[in-house]
Amino acid sequence: MDLIQNLDYLFNPRSVALIGASSTFGKWGFNILSLLISQDRGREIYAVNKKEPEILGRKTYRTITEVPSPVDLAVITVPYQDIPSAMEECVRKGVKSAIVISGGLAETGAEGAEVQRRMVHIARQGGLRFIGPNCMGHFDAHSDINTVIFLPPVNRGPVSLVSQSGNSGQAIMYMAGEAGLGISKYISSGNEADLQFEDYIAYLAQDDKTAIILAYIEGIRDGRRFLRLAREVTRRKPIVIMKAGRTEAGARAARSHTASLAGSDVVCDAAFKQAGIIRVDEITELIDVAMVLLGQPLPRGRRVGVLSGGGGAAVMSADALKRVGLEVPPLSPKTMEKLNGILSRRWSHGNPVDPGGDALNYECLWALIEDENIDITLAIGAAGMAGSWIRWYVVPPTIRTQIDEYMVGAIDQELKNIQKAKDMSVSHGKPVVMSNVCVPPLEKGAVYRKLEHEHMLPFLTPERAARAIAHLVEYSEYLGVAEGKR
Amino acid sequence: MDLIQNLDYLFNPRSVALIGASSTFGKWGFNILSLLISQDRGREIYAVNKKEPEILGRKTYRTITEVPSPVDLAVITVPYQDIPSAMEECVRKGVKSAIVISGGLAETGAEGAEVQRRMVHIARQGGLRFIGPNCMGHFDAHSDINTVIFLPPVNRGPVSLVSQSGNSGQAIMYMAGEAGLGISKYISSGNEADLQFEDYIAYLAQDDKTAIILAYIEGIRDGRRFLRLAREVTRRKPIVIMKAGRTEAGARAARSHTASLAGSDVVCDAAFKQAGIIRVDEITELIDVAMVLLGQPLPRGRRVGVLSGGGGAAVMSADALKRVGLEVPPLSPKTMEKLNGILSRRWSHGNPVDPGGDALNYECLWALIEDENIDITLAIGAAGMAGSWIRWYVVPPTIRTQIDEYMVGAIDQELKNIQKAKDMSVSHGKPVVMSNVCVPPLEKGAVYRKLEHEHMLPFLTPERAARAIAHLVEYSEYLGVAEGKR
Repeated sequence: MDLIQNLDYLFNPRSVALIGASSTFGKWGFNILSLLISQDRGREIYAVNKKEPEILGRKTYRTITEVPSPVDLAVITVPYQDIPSAMEECVRKGVKSAIVISGGLAETGAEGAEVQRRMVHIARQGGLRFIGPNCMGHFDAHSDINTVIFLPPVNRGPVSLVSQSGNSGQAIMYMAGEAGLGISKYISSGNEADLQFEDYIAYLAQDDKTAIILAYIEGIRDGRRFLRLAREVTRRKPIVIMKAGRTEAGARAARSHTASLAGSDVVCDAAFKQAGIIRVDEITELIDVAMVLLGQPLPRGRRVGVLSGGGGAAVMSADALKRVGLEVPPLSPKTMEKLNGILSRRWSHGNPVDPGGDALNYECLWALIEDENIDITLAIGAAGMAGSWIRWYVVPPTIRTQIDEYMVGAIDQELKNIQKAKDMSVSHGKPVVMSNVCVPPLEKGAVYRKLEHEHMLPFLTPERAARAIAHLVEYSEYLGVAEGKR
Repeated sequence: MDLIQNLDYLFNPRSVALIGASSTFGKWGFNILSLLISQDRGREIYAVNKKEPEILGRKTYRTITEVPSPVDLAVITVPYQDIPSAMEECVRKGVKSAIVISGGLAETGAEGAEVQRRMVHIARQGGLRFIGPNCMGHFDAHSDINTVIFLPPVNRGPVSLVSQSGNSGQAIMYMAGEAGLGISKYISSGNEADLQFEDYIAYLAQDDKTAIILAYIEGIRDGRRFLRLAREVTRRKPIVIMKAGRTEAGARAARSHTASLAGSDVVCDAAFKQAGIIRVDEITELIDVAMVLLGQPLPRGRRVGVLSGGGGAAVMSADALKRVGLEVPPLSPKTMEKLNGILSRRWSHGNPVDPGGDALNYECLWALIEDENIDITLAIGAAGMAGSWIRWYVVPPTIRTQIDEYMVGAIDQELKNIQKAKDMSVSHGKPVVMSNVCVPPLEKGAVYRKLEHEHMLPFLTPERAARAIAHLVEYSEYLGVAEGKR
């Protein structure tokens, strides 16, 4: 059986057995069982427990071999010493895939490493492939299988995540949910005793429900294989990686965490770049980059036109863009002329465009997008900003109604402008990125939902927007869409 | 009259006149008037408008000279051409302080610059000092004067802010409110035609309601005077500055924004360091640094002990700390022994301390604080984290009650632990900083309120926590509390 078929059993099992089911709330064996039961997909769920005859109202089996029907996926939560025998029983039962949640293996030293070796040996002999050990579950939004007990709410969509850390994975899933990024698959890969990071990449590469691959990693077992694979995949699907353990102290912590051996960070950086992998520095950036990849066309260059609602934001944006190697070039004479016609004498007369006290005007945005000197536009405090601040207005109650009425019209206009920004972005092949200045976006009303739907939610700071744009440009240069410096 | 007396009129006026009052919602003259009227501090509020006899139900005056009683503060919102004559009338009336909201002055070119020069001339002749022009108001939480129409809700407290950008100031105030930082005074200083950044620093230096001075600036008019002043002030009160316009593109944007001339950024950096000023890179850091300054003792060194709820966070924290120049040293043999007694064999056996799947344990935190190799502890995913994740548990309804009961006890225990962390932090003179991993803290319940009260709210990412700690160490070294590398 090939890797892809094995992994299909993991991500779309018709039946699941939980080995180590427990009746004690707080134990993995209890929490995962109640989670599996809650998934109403017509899947058979079997609880395996040596001592208790019934858990959560369902009959248990002493071993998986006693289960009367075939089992596609075994979830293993027994203490580490008991894993090899549980795995032997899985093989005897003919189970083709497993996820081992239990920890205490190679990450803890020689004794655990020995148990882990035995697990792998048994699995390899029996044609069983497994996730883990020492992991926090896996999830497929399309088949709705979920073994992640704390999974934050996320939409279904095209982004998949492999994380060598369970809690980093949790955090990334949480942020994805907040940003409205739809998830396809999530794997907390743990110690990667059998299935390795490279295997998941190979699987996600051929998965037509995955368009973007995100990863949090601390080390790669088979670096050569991974890079060979990545070079091929990144031509079709972006791979965005946060590799932790950059410093000596971090690498040391990684060894005791997932028993991974990190190579030289500089070598890793260069190799990633050659393979077209987008490498980010903080896990928040995984989300930021996924958002621009989903919401924006690939830019044809690195020249950014900035439209800012205020002067401070204009200055901070220019700084942020320059510091990540992007350009903030002069506007074309034609654009200058257009802007002189739109704005009062108070405007900044250059890039960044700061209306200087006038309200932010979408006409300026259209002018920037049309400028042949500009590849990308960054709009600071544009979408729905008025709605954010207006709630702090102190006005007499009679005016409150006036504001509410004004807002209805303003929201309607804003929705049209966002659609136009999107359309122009596509037709000109130029990203239109939005950002706020530390004040989070608007209530989750119509404007928010529209922006979320278009993957154009404003970044929280110009610095985050700038970093995301820089990664998008870098990828576009790699693919040869943008003419690079390289 | 000296500067301090003039500024007292600004921050605690008994009577205020708004020159440029308007009956049109959305105009500054309307919004500020309704804001002033809403402040019920027994202050007289006068509306000055040449045409309309009544605005918002109150009689107006054609000029400020017609107001029957003395006026301490004039708020000016008239168009730029009319400012000089308004200011002449203020002088005639004997007004001692003003804030000029209107823009269109030096930031727009020669014509505006000429008007601005006339304003300054009139004011200087008449003994009137003013904030602005081209600014967004000022605020004193203690006297409750407020001319900032979009002021986000903030508590009263010891942090003051001067911002050369109105919208950056808004953002900083918003973040301060979210972080529970209490505000004393806020000044949107605009073009600083008369009162300059240095004047506000001098005033805040002697203000016993201000313990920490924050600033967003783009340029300093009298650099020598400022640095002389700062050297003296930072011995007693920290000054934390975000200076934008670091890059050439940023500096250019700053010129058209507040008409400020930025010097060389490298020179500025060195001068700030010599004067003990804490310089930050992003405005979010202003809040982060203010929080550790308020909530933490000054550390005696840069050796950080990390306690992490998960392995990924441990690796990312170690990376983040090392990258800002902090140390993550080995733990003392005594601490290793203590931790071996507290944790299972699965723990990381080193710094960072990762329980390796066991629950995070406050006993480990006490051990780290007591370690003589450690100056500062960073706890990742400690406070209230359980409460954040537990809401995503899928459990049968019967168990929901069990969780709720468990949470009552857990919260009670958490409150005691936070108090103990605070007490030990003070008695050992060692900061105890908390962080999450991208998941924002807990609902705003008892644990949140306790942490907010102690200025110990968790940072959102280990990277932000690390940067804030690095600034605290740097300041501590400057004051000679920590033995520095310098």
